[in-house]
Amino acid sequence: MHAAMVIAVGFALIILAGALLLMLPCAAKSGRATPFIDALFTATSATCVTGLVTVSTAVHWSLFGKCVILLLIQIGGLGFMSVMTAASLLLRRTITLRERMVIGAGFGLDSSGGIVRLMRRVLVGTFLFEGVGAGLLSIRFVQQFGLLRGVGMGVFHAISAFCNGGFDLMGTPDDPFCSLVHYAGDPLVNLTIMALIVLGGLGFFVWSDVWDHRRFRRLSLHSKLVLAMSGVLLGGGFVLTLLFEWSNPATLGGMSVPHRLLAAAFQTVTLRTAGFNTIDQSALTDPSQAVACVLMLIGGSPGSTAGGLKTVTVAVLALSAVSALRGRTSVTAFGRTIEPRSIMNAVALTVVGVTIILGGACTISFIENVPMNLCLFETASAFGTVGLTMSLTPALSAVSHIMLIVMMYFGRVGVLTFGVAVFLRRREPPKLTFPSGNVMIG
Amino acid sequence: MHAAMVIAVGFALIILAGALLLMLPCAAKSGRATPFIDALFTATSATCVTGLVTVSTAVHWSLFGKCVILLLIQIGGLGFMSVMTAASLLLRRTITLRERMVIGAGFGLDSSGGIVRLMRRVLVGTFLFEGVGAGLLSIRFVQQFGLLRGVGMGVFHAISAFCNGGFDLMGTPDDPFCSLVHYAGDPLVNLTIMALIVLGGLGFFVWSDVWDHRRFRRLSLHSKLVLAMSGVLLGGGFVLTLLFEWSNPATLGGMSVPHRLLAAAFQTVTLRTAGFNTIDQSALTDPSQAVACVLMLIGGSPGSTAGGLKTVTVAVLALSAVSALRGRTSVTAFGRTIEPRSIMNAVALTVVGVTIILGGACTISFIENVPMNLCLFETASAFGTVGLTMSLTPALSAVSHIMLIVMMYFGRVGVLTFGVAVFLRRREPPKLTFPSGNVMIG
Ligand SMILES: [K+]
Ligand SMILES: [K+]
Repeated sequence: MHAAMVIAVGFALIILAGALLLMLPCAAKSGRATPFIDALFTATSATCVTGLVTVSTAVHWSLFGKCVILLLIQIGGLGFMSVMTAASLLLRRTITLRERMVIGAGFGLDSSGGIVRLMRRVLVGTFLFEGVGAGLLSIRFVQQFGLLRGVGMGVFHAISAFCNGGFDLMGTPDDPFCSLVHYAGDPLVNLTIMALIVLGGLGFFVWSDVWDHRRFRRLSLHSKLVLAMSGVLLGGGFVLTLLFEWSNPATLGGMSVPHRLLAAAFQTVTLRTAGFNTIDQSALTDPSQAVACVLMLIGGSPGSTAGGLKTVTVAVLALSAVSALRGRTSVTAFGRTIEPRSIMNAVALTVVGVTIILGGACTISFIENVPMNLCLFETASAFGTVGLTMSLTPALSAVSHIMLIVMMYFGRVGVLTFGVAVFLRRREPPKLTFPSGNVMIG
Repeated sequence: MHAAMVIAVGFALIILAGALLLMLPCAAKSGRATPFIDALFTATSATCVTGLVTVSTAVHWSLFGKCVILLLIQIGGLGFMSVMTAASLLLRRTITLRERMVIGAGFGLDSSGGIVRLMRRVLVGTFLFEGVGAGLLSIRFVQQFGLLRGVGMGVFHAISAFCNGGFDLMGTPDDPFCSLVHYAGDPLVNLTIMALIVLGGLGFFVWSDVWDHRRFRRLSLHSKLVLAMSGVLLGGGFVLTLLFEWSNPATLGGMSVPHRLLAAAFQTVTLRTAGFNTIDQSALTDPSQAVACVLMLIGGSPGSTAGGLKTVTVAVLALSAVSALRGRTSVTAFGRTIEPRSIMNAVALTVVGVTIILGGACTISFIENVPMNLCLFETASAFGTVGLTMSLTPALSAVSHIMLIVMMYFGRVGVLTFGVAVFLRRREPPKLTFPSGNVMIG
C-alpha cells in the first residue's frame, strides 16, 4: 500500500475507533451513550488536533472520555510522524515516503537509520516539552484545583497546547465553552501555553535542523522559510490585532496596557493553529475577523501538528509573486531555486483550501441561514485545524457538522496527501510532452 | 520608454485630464465646479471602465460632463489596445510590446503589419457591435424618452455596456443610483446589454482568432481557455445565483419564473465585469454576496475591457492544481504545455489582487466602521473594475475614495504591467542560477 494511502486510511480508522469509544455510556458524565454524530465530531476534532466541539469537553465527558480525547490528540498530533515512519518501515516503502516528504533528503533521511533517528528525536522532544509545560502549568492549576486535579489539568493542557489540540477543561455548566478567558491576565499560563503552541507548530524537521546546525545560515531552505514566515505571520498578526482591537471594549479595550499586549500576543499565537482563546472570539471587530480567517487558513508549518495551507506554501506563493513582478523566470530564496513542481503543489493546496472554506461557508450559510462571516470563521477554523469559534458550531445541524468533520480531516491529512492517495496510479504518468502554448496572464 | 511604462503613465494622464475637464463648472448640471475628489473618482471610474460613482451620473453631470465620461469610457475601454499599439509603433518598440503580450505571436503580430491589421479589426468590431447595440436599445428608449434623448440614451448605454463601463443614465433625483432595476423584466434591454457585455469581455484576441479560424479545435490555446473558462463562470454563476436568490423576496423571490431566469442570467453576466444591475445588490443573501465577490475579483478575459484577475489566470491556477493533485510535474491544457513562467505570473496577479481587496476592505472597515462584507463587495468591485455596489461608495470618506481610485487603476492597468513598469531594469536579470532547494508543501 502506498504511504499516502496508509496515512489517509490510518487517520480514518483512528477517528472511527475513537468515535466508537466515545459513544460508550462510561465516556459521558451522564452515564448515557453519546449520539454518534457528537462522538464522531469530537473524535475527528481530537485526532485532527482541531478543538472545535459540539459539547463542552469539561462538562459532557467523564474521566474515561477525557482520557480517550487526550490519547487521540497525542496520536493525531505528535504520533502522526511516528505512525507515518513506522508504517513505511514496516511496508518497506521508504522511497515512496521520501517522495512525499521531499524535504527528508536534507535531513539525512535517505537511509532508514536517519528516519529512526528523527523518530527518536520526535518522541524525546515531545515528552520533554510536554513534561516541562505540564510542570509549569501545574504550579497554577494545583493552587486552584488541588493536587491531583491540578496536575491532571496541567498534563491535559500541556499536551493539548503542544499538539495544538485546542481542547480545554475549563468549561462549567454555566459557561460551557469559555476556554482560557479567565486566564487572560495570567502571564504564567499565557507564556507557557504560547511557548508550547509555537514549538509544536514549527514542526519536527525544524527542531532537528536547529539542533544539528544551531546557526540560521546553516539551516536548510525549509527551516529558513518556516522560521522567516512564522516570524512574519506572528509579527503581522500581533500588530493588526492590537490595531483593530485596541479600543474594542468587549476585547482589549477594557484591559490595562500590559494585559492588552499579552492578550494580543496570545490571540496571534493561538490563531496560527492552536485554538485556545483568552478573548471572546465573537466580539472581535470585522477587520480582526478577516485577519483571523486568513491566519487560520494559513495555519502552521509542514511536518508539525498544524493544519491548513501551511507557512511554506504561502512563502512559496509570495516568493513566486515577487519573482514574477520583477520579471524573473525562476523563483529563488536564500540562495536556492524553488522548483516549478513546488509552486504547482503550493497552488494546488491553496486552490483546494480556499475552495473548501469558501464553498463550505456558502453552503452552511445557505442551509442554516446564518451570516457568512460566522460561517467563514468556522470553516477556516476547521480546515486550518485551529478550533477557534464564534460560538456557531454547537448550534449547527448534523449536515453542517458532517461538513466540518470532512474539512478537519482534509485539513489535517493534507489535500496533497489525499490527492496522491486517490489519484496516483501505480503506472507512470505519460512521458509524452506537449509543445508549450502561450497564454496571456493579466 | 518601455511599453509597460507607456501604459501605466498614459492611463494616469488620461485620468488626470478627465478629472480636470469634469471639474469645470459647465460639466455639472448645477453650473458649479465639482470637488476635485469627486471629479477624480468619476474620471478614474470611467477611464478604468468600472462604473462605481460618488455622484449620480444622470443627476449630477451636464450633457458636456456626460460626453466627457462617455469619451473616457471609450478611450479606457476599447481604445486601450489601440493606444498601446499606436504608442509602440510610434516609439518603434514593437518587440518589447510583444514581450508583454506574449500571446501576440499566435495571431501573426510578429510584424507591424499584423498589429495594424488587429488594430483595424478592433476599431471596426467596436463600432459595429456598439452601433447594432445602440440601434436595438434605441427601439425601447425612443418610446420612453422621445427621439433625440432616446437615441442618446441608446448610444450611451451601448458604449457603456460594450466597454463594460457600468455607467448608466437611469438615476433620478429621488432614486439616484437605480441602474437598470426598472428594466429587470424587459427582454430587449436585458438581452442586448448582456450580448454587448459578453462580447466586450471576451477580448480582441479571441474575436480575431474566432474570425480567422471559425472552429474551436483550431483556435489558439489562449482563446480555448478564455471560452471554456467564460462558459464555466457564466454557467456556475447562473446556477448559484438562482439557488441562493430563488426565494429571496427582495430580489428574485417576487418575480415570475421566466423573469427570475432572466434576472439571474443578467446578474451573472454583469458580475463578470460589467456593473449594471437589475436587482438590488444590497438585498443579496450572504452566500450570493460571496459568489459575487469571487466572480467580480476574477473579472473578464485578458486583452478585453475587463479588470480583475482575468479568466486565463484562474484557468492556469486551476489546471496547475489538478496537475499537482494527479502527481504530474507539468501543466497541460488542450494538448499544450503551460510554462512555469505563466504559472508564476498567475500566482503573482492572484496574490497581489487578493491582498489588495482584503487589505483595502479591512482598512475601509476599520476607518469607516462599516461591516466587512460591504467593504469586500466594494473593493472587489473596484479591483475587478466591475462597478456593482451595495450602496456604500457614495457614503465613504475621501481617504476611502482615494483607496478605491488606486484599486480601480491597478485593476485596469494590471498588476503585472505596473510591476514590469516599475521593477524591470534596462539591464538583464542575473544569469547566475542557484542550485535547487527542496521544500515541503502541505
Ligand atoms: K487546534
Ligand atoms: K465595469
